[in-house]
Amino acid sequence: MYAQPIQKLISELSRLPGIGRKTAQRLAYFIIKSDDNYAYELSEAISNAKDNVKYCSVCGNITDKDPCEYCSSPTRDRSIICVVQDSRDVIAIERTKEYKGLYHILGGAISPMEGIGPEDLRIAQLMARLDSTVEEVILATNLTVEGETTAMYISRVIKPLGVKTTRIARGIPSGADLEYTDEATLANAIEGRRIID
Amino acid sequence: MYAQPIQKLISELSRLPGIGRKTAQRLAYFIIKSDDNYAYELSEAISNAKDNVKYCSVCGNITDKDPCEYCSSPTRDRSIICVVQDSRDVIAIERTKEYKGLYHILGGAISPMEGIGPEDLRIAQLMARLDSTVEEVILATNLTVEGETTAMYISRVIKPLGVKTTRIARGIPSGADLEYTDEATLANAIEGRRIID
Repeated sequence: MYAQPIQKLISELSRLPGIGRKTAQRLAYFIIKSDDNYAYELSEAISNAKDNVKYCSVCGNITDKDPCEYCSSPTRDRSIICVVQDSRDVIAIERTKEYKGLYHILGGAISPMEGIGPEDLRIAQLMARLDSTVEEVILATNLTVEGETTAMYISRVIKPLGVKTTRIARGIPSGADLEYTDEATLANAIEGRRIID
Repeated sequence: MYAQPIQKLISELSRLPGIGRKTAQRLAYFIIKSDDNYAYELSEAISNAKDNVKYCSVCGNITDKDPCEYCSSPTRDRSIICVVQDSRDVIAIERTKEYKGLYHILGGAISPMEGIGPEDLRIAQLMARLDSTVEEVILATNLTVEGETTAMYISRVIKPLGVKTTRIARGIPSGADLEYTDEATLANAIEGRRIID
């Protein structure tokens, strides 16, 4: 029903996560109909990103230079490494402007269901970074079963090295009502209560 | 916070309709991380579609050849022209497999709010097509205020030519409950009731 180049574009767009057939069709028409150079700019941005983006050989973050800006920064605190599942988690943490240490990207979490074991993650590379300059490893994997399992596993393998290992706090999100908070979260929040100075 | 090529890709993707910052970020990471040649295939599909897609000089449909497949088809019924607002409406109508006539794409609808008048639509081109071979013009603009206004306007300008002009039926959608149908639709459905043979 579609002209061949449109058909091809719709089918390529449909492969994007969360983009169904209908949305792909809408996007394809938008791209084709855009008056300015948008289609070429988008096309170029995609191939350029693919060409120039690589993984940092130290932390595993997505970057356009190796080592990445965090690993090569002279101003970041090199005594703390924050371990996350994904590059996008780095962006989320950077947005808080609260953290000035280094990062380590695992590339996922342990998940027997999906057949992902510790050897599939960048845990050996993390261990290799834990020399005497590193004082703390913050485990900032997701607060899901997989994330918790991964944090537990890493804390166990790090323990013999004597490096302090911490886990990000579980509790009630900012702005949330207690009434609508699930029991597990509420129980965690009570258990993790802190003295008010 | 992002490496420059990622930043650029996210900002280009954000210009797509319905794609917010968060979604653009998710899509960008997906594109960059895709193992196979997906990024290049997508990039190529976009620029190729933009390069090869044009507007049919007869009906105004998006096409890769001029005249388009409908206008140049020897099997379509050339005595009926179905007038729609947008190329996507053609796809929707083709899906029904009910219609075998020609099309005419207006490129929008009359909308004083958006400053779109009859002269901004392909109405003159439609008039030029109405020779003695055309027996019916189906007005299939949207069932919105703008679509109705446009249908009314076109039916008025066609009237002196003596060509039969019809409007697609208003009524209750297939599968809908009367209970949840708005009054205007229900009123239209009652008004437009048909004798059961």
